[in-house]
Amino acid sequence: MRGVWCDGAAVRFRGDLDEPRPAAGEVVLGVRLAGICDTDLQLARGYMGYRGVLGHEFVGELPGGQRVTAEINNPCGACPTCAAGRPGHCPGRSVLGILGHPGAMAERVAVPARNLHPIPDAIADEAAVFVEPLAAAFRMVEQVEPRPGMALAVLGDGKLGMLCAWAARESGATVHLVGKHPAKLALAGTGVATHLLADAERLGRPFDAVVDATGSPSGFPAALRLVRPCGTVVLKTTISARYEVDLAPIVIDEIRVVGSRCGPFPRAIAALASGVVDVRPLVGAEFPLDRAEDAFRAAGTPGSRKILLRP
Amino acid sequence: MRGVWCDGAAVRFRGDLDEPRPAAGEVVLGVRLAGICDTDLQLARGYMGYRGVLGHEFVGELPGGQRVTAEINNPCGACPTCAAGRPGHCPGRSVLGILGHPGAMAERVAVPARNLHPIPDAIADEAAVFVEPLAAAFRMVEQVEPRPGMALAVLGDGKLGMLCAWAARESGATVHLVGKHPAKLALAGTGVATHLLADAERLGRPFDAVVDATGSPSGFPAALRLVRPCGTVVLKTTISARYEVDLAPIVIDEIRVVGSRCGPFPRAIAALASGVVDVRPLVGAEFPLDRAEDAFRAAGTPGSRKILLRP
Repeated sequence: MRGVWCDGAAVRFRGDLDEPRPAAGEVVLGVRLAGICDTDLQLARGYMGYRGVLGHEFVGELPGGQRVTAEINNPCGACPTCAAGRPGHCPGRSVLGILGHPGAMAERVAVPARNLHPIPDAIADEAAVFVEPLAAAFRMVEQVEPRPGMALAVLGDGKLGMLCAWAARESGATVHLVGKHPAKLALAGTGVATHLLADAERLGRPFDAVVDATGSPSGFPAALRLVRPCGTVVLKTTISARYEVDLAPIVIDEIRVVGSRCGPFPRAIAALASGVVDVRPLVGAEFPLDRAEDAFRAAGTPGSRKILLRP
Repeated sequence: MRGVWCDGAAVRFRGDLDEPRPAAGEVVLGVRLAGICDTDLQLARGYMGYRGVLGHEFVGELPGGQRVTAEINNPCGACPTCAAGRPGHCPGRSVLGILGHPGAMAERVAVPARNLHPIPDAIADEAAVFVEPLAAAFRMVEQVEPRPGMALAVLGDGKLGMLCAWAARESGATVHLVGKHPAKLALAGTGVATHLLADAERLGRPFDAVVDATGSPSGFPAALRLVRPCGTVVLKTTISARYEVDLAPIVIDEIRVVGSRCGPFPRAIAALASGVVDVRPLVGAEFPLDRAEDAFRAAGTPGSRKILLRP
């Protein structure tokens, strides 16, 4: 089988991969399209020590042709964490293309049947690969509960920042997107106020909640400078490095900091199907699988849109 | 007037201080007893750039003899933060003995009348100086809402850690105190399970909430190692220094980190008056004001109990 292999130092196309071996409860999907995200770029550099086929943002099809995508966490279902209703945090879980489970940048992928979500006809393949990251954006919405009267700022004008801003836009809160690139901020569209970071810092600390979706060590300190006392900072950025921060403002201003990871697929699918969120401005170039190295290089270019791989 | 002066590099007794000049709405109290806390030790080393009379944990008396203590934040009452119901975070506030307002380590102190709380006869002066730090402990209880079925760990076997454990003890949660000093852990008394830190780290991650009351940069990373996924870490430690942390576990495990500062005086006073919290094991030596330098030296000794100053 053809696919994209990560050896912890780089990625490369391979034409000699084993076919997926479905475990009990798993089904094999034909992969139609997969997306490259920042986590893949980090995995390619050795983050989490993953060795195997990459890919956790994808749309595939069942043997009958039904288009589907799949949640990425495969919990054990039997441990105390699963029993406590937090299967996404199961210590024994595997994670599609990230931890102990071959991913979807390949011709075929095996996933647990219970993880499947059908993709409605209204969602093109190019949009369907955004279900997973848009679900992660809606996780932030679940945690912050933006509502009328609330001012929410999203830091980071990359793809995740944009998805977070769009996911919050229907809540009635005023949504602000703060970045460093006018051309990228311009993609936000109606209903989102955009600011350059330097300008936002001159506003004082007007925000009830600030989402760090920068992917940069500078994001968290900036979020702490922008959030009001007793406000909420949502951390979406995972940096695979230790770095210096001053935690005293968290205590003095009684800030709530909330880590945010995977989110509700149904909500993301509904938002894409209804057109409430239109991800087309974020779609970038498409590459065939055997040009995976070029595709990863393109995805690693600052400011790139979502790079897609077509098996 | 006699009192304890902080010049940002050290503290010293002075016999030549000006009498308090009460602002509109302020009353002048005779100070009966004041406590030295870690914040005072940090202020003495230059934290926050404070210059003036120290002291924010105290019991005083009104001209007629009524014993009182006072909340430490003096908000402006007119700004948007005050209007939003967060007067403790008013950007224009002064803070007794910490920021722009002379403190209580003196013969007399001026405080806003609206900040006063009477001290019931059941509370001795030596216990009344704990109202402010015990209120800060109850702030954590307000934020975490410990309840039956919940496992709460307090990191730090110093005075603040002990107060947090005691404040949570009546909630029905199982309360654990984690420290490094068997002799200090032994003060916890009934209703609190005690562990050495190394032993606690062998328990896995069993805690729904972990309070960092260590006063040390090692506290926050230890809290992240002990809290369960989706659990809560309460930061009580203010370190006046930047330090390296790895924030990725907050995102991956979706931890909630909550800064925690000042708390409800009435709840602390009620707990002391009823005997639900008995602070006598924490009371240390008492010094006269003119031995302030000796008192601060004693308070800075590792493991010291609460050092008191008697005007």
